[in-house]
Amino acid sequence: MTHDADVIRDTTSGASLTEQATRELLVELLRDFHARGWVSGTGGGICGPADDGGLLLAPTGVHKERVRPDEFFTIDPGDGRVLSSPANEALRPSECNSIFCLTHRRRGAWSVVHSHGLSAILAGDVAGDAGDDHLVIRDLEMLKGLPGVSNEDVHLVPVIRNTPREPELVEQLTAVFSDPRFESAYAVIVRDHGAYIWGDDVWAAKRHTEVYHFLFEATVARRDRHKEDRA
Amino acid sequence: MTHDADVIRDTTSGASLTEQATRELLVELLRDFHARGWVSGTGGGICGPADDGGLLLAPTGVHKERVRPDEFFTIDPGDGRVLSSPANEALRPSECNSIFCLTHRRRGAWSVVHSHGLSAILAGDVAGDAGDDHLVIRDLEMLKGLPGVSNEDVHLVPVIRNTPREPELVEQLTAVFSDPRFESAYAVIVRDHGAYIWGDDVWAAKRHTEVYHFLFEATVARRDRHKEDRA
Amino acid sequence: MTHDADVIRDTTSGASLTEQATRELLVELLRDFHARGWVSGTGGGICGPADDGGLLLAPTGVHKERVRPDEFFTIDPGDGRVLSSPANEALRPSECNSIFCLTHRRRGAWSVVHSHGLSAILAGDVAGDAGDDHLVIRDLEMLKGLPGVSNEDVHLVPVIRNTPREPELVEQLTAVFSDPRFESAYAVIVRDHGAYIWGDDVWAAKRHTEVYHFLFEATVARRDRHKEDRA
Amino acid sequence: MTHDADVIRDTTSGASLTEQATRELLVELLRDFHARGWVSGTGGGICGPADDGGLLLAPTGVHKERVRPDEFFTIDPGDGRVLSSPANEALRPSECNSIFCLTHRRRGAWSVVHSHGLSAILAGDVAGDAGDDHLVIRDLEMLKGLPGVSNEDVHLVPVIRNTPREPELVEQLTAVFSDPRFESAYAVIVRDHGAYIWGDDVWAAKRHTEVYHFLFEATVARRDRHKEDRA
Repeated sequence: MTHDADVIRDTTSGASLTEQATRELLVELLRDFHARGWVSGTGGGICGPADDGGLLLAPTGVHKERVRPDEFFTIDPGDGRVLSSPANEALRPSECNSIFCLTHRRRGAWSVVHSHGLSAILAGDVAGDAGDDHLVIRDLEMLKGLPGVSNEDVHLVPVIRNTPREPELVEQLTAVFSDPRFESAYAVIVRDHGAYIWGDDVWAAKRHTEVYHFLFEATVARRDRHKEDRA
Repeated sequence: MTHDADVIRDTTSGASLTEQATRELLVELLRDFHARGWVSGTGGGICGPADDGGLLLAPTGVHKERVRPDEFFTIDPGDGRVLSSPANEALRPSECNSIFCLTHRRRGAWSVVHSHGLSAILAGDVAGDAGDDHLVIRDLEMLKGLPGVSNEDVHLVPVIRNTPREPELVEQLTAVFSDPRFESAYAVIVRDHGAYIWGDDVWAAKRHTEVYHFLFEATVARRDRHKEDRA
Repeated sequence: MTHDADVIRDTTSGASLTEQATRELLVELLRDFHARGWVSGTGGGICGPADDGGLLLAPTGVHKERVRPDEFFTIDPGDGRVLSSPANEALRPSECNSIFCLTHRRRGAWSVVHSHGLSAILAGDVAGDAGDDHLVIRDLEMLKGLPGVSNEDVHLVPVIRNTPREPELVEQLTAVFSDPRFESAYAVIVRDHGAYIWGDDVWAAKRHTEVYHFLFEATVARRDRHKEDRA
Repeated sequence: MTHDADVIRDTTSGASLTEQATRELLVELLRDFHARGWVSGTGGGICGPADDGGLLLAPTGVHKERVRPDEFFTIDPGDGRVLSSPANEALRPSECNSIFCLTHRRRGAWSVVHSHGLSAILAGDVAGDAGDDHLVIRDLEMLKGLPGVSNEDVHLVPVIRNTPREPELVEQLTAVFSDPRFESAYAVIVRDHGAYIWGDDVWAAKRHTEVYHFLFEATVARRDRHKEDRA
């Protein structure tokens, strides 16, 4: 994919993005994630912080690489209530709404990415084949891309079962957020489905999204290695 | 691939695209599909609705990523007759003509994509290795990208044999469209060849094209898993 | 990769490109092939027809995605003699020179692509593992992208041994061009190295380059299938 | 990815780039490497020559595809001391600093790329599985992309163990640079981490980066072949 001259940049200055810059960055990331196969077929989603303490939420059922900056909903992260809607009345808020709000409340995340990447599904298979409710990630420098995680850690990512509708994932997700094994995880894998990946702000969520997809791909590529460890 | 600022957008407003916008969208999709390897080597094709009740049909034998908006034929979807031709007299209508028309008549599709993607071929191999006339797709959230299909369904995609010329596929395709097992399928795999994928309009065909390629890739990646299920 | 609005187009009108358009097309194809990994690390090359009956030849040892239209040599296809050189005196003609000329004389090719694509190397391994001096390609619709080849043909691509210097390949290549088994091939695989792929003009060479890389990838992906056929 | 019309070009004229052109080229390469997955998740890095005899060093912890030409540090290659810093006070020099300086002093490299590419990690696994402290690369034409290396050479790339912090790699790296087996290597693989790849100037480092990733991918794809050789 291409990054043209006026992409939203990471100033790393600690200064917050304006809401308009956040909307433009979310749009840019959706285009980039679509090119990488993480939000294809109108699947996947993203949210980020609005100026008024709300969450900007992408619409559902649309081709994600074509969302415009003025097409986000603003929702109340406390209860998922829609605070403002885009002018286009055909748009509906993403089904991820309740999950994004839960992740915000339990993890303080102001940005969550919902990926439909194949590597997340195959990583869920690796966990399932091992009979585990989590994916074991270790021996990878890229773990240092996650706050508080070192490359010597054995990092556990929770894996939950898929459900017919996304809001039905909330119960399992609630249990995951209370499980001390998963305190350092910034992602949850949903079997046969994809992953939710979050961060304090959009830059962190973007970094963690790249980091986890790399970790998933590496762990899938090393699948046989880990089987041998076990045997 | 890149999506620049003025790509044709999904308004999701229910408003129809003008014919000129349809021509531009078809051209954009051919570029995108070429970058993904789905219409390489001048292979593959696409059609979409014209204003006069006809079907816009891409020319055959040309580099698909270079087709221009003024280079489509208009054909009568009832009998495949050419209603209007592009000014460039060297162009010939796609061999997909008869198949696109059949799909329109039997499925009401106003847009059909003919993919030469490798994942469609390898998915056909998975079906063939199992001795089946169809590919079994299941346990994947992405199934919900197809109208009326849930992620709990066992989705069957018909697989037909390749023939020397594309119009010769019509007989098998006619049988497939009458087979109650395949009523919810929006695609047919042609062994050693690729797939036909359709939708009510161009946006639906584009979504289904992304969805099915994802489903093909996932099912191929999980090939051994399914073998074990069978054993 | 991206194809912007003013890429060189395939008019399919039979009209020849001007030399300047040929130079621009060769430059565009080198960029595209580099993005696909076929001419990385300054490897690979391309030639096309000049106005004066010569062959335009890309320089050697340069980053192929950065070659400019004014940086081609013109060589005499009869003997490889340099007829004209680019203004930049640091440039040297490609080592492919003698092979391109031989291919022109024996096959009438006015355009030859030298690919360093990994799929060509792995396809050469498939042939070598079978103890053959050729790759067997069959059961693939994409074969129809080659003139005179049908999807029912068993298509043989010659595979020759690599040598320390490219001109040393000429002897093996001469034998290949006289071998009746390979009359319908538009490519030669060089083991551990890549492939030479040609066509009557630049459009044909571009189409065959895409076709053969697809055929190589498919044959490598089906490697085990073919082993079983043999056993 | 795309290369637009005004990318920094390889003049191959032997003329040095100005420092400003070097900064722009480093920025372009970071964008390109990010698109290829070699510097994702804010990982990886690069350095190149400054006008004053210093090394331009990319900042740490930032999204590498968004670094601007004015955001490099200049360091003293003798001792790693920061000679000048970018205006943005939030930026910190890369942790690669000490390794880049060591590589400069021991190998005369004016440009070093630190890749987090998955193929480098998997290549390290191949070496580890064989019980070796190096990767064996052979039978690949692409070896000729390295100065002084022929396609008949058996090329050894040292593989060192990963450490919690990058500066701790210096001890192993010092040993590697004194090991006569590795005199012709322009790369060091760090297990579970990635690779350092260098060249006399930025063009050479760019070429070697493409060459080694190709060699890593090919060697990983041929992993079973090499196992059989050993058995």
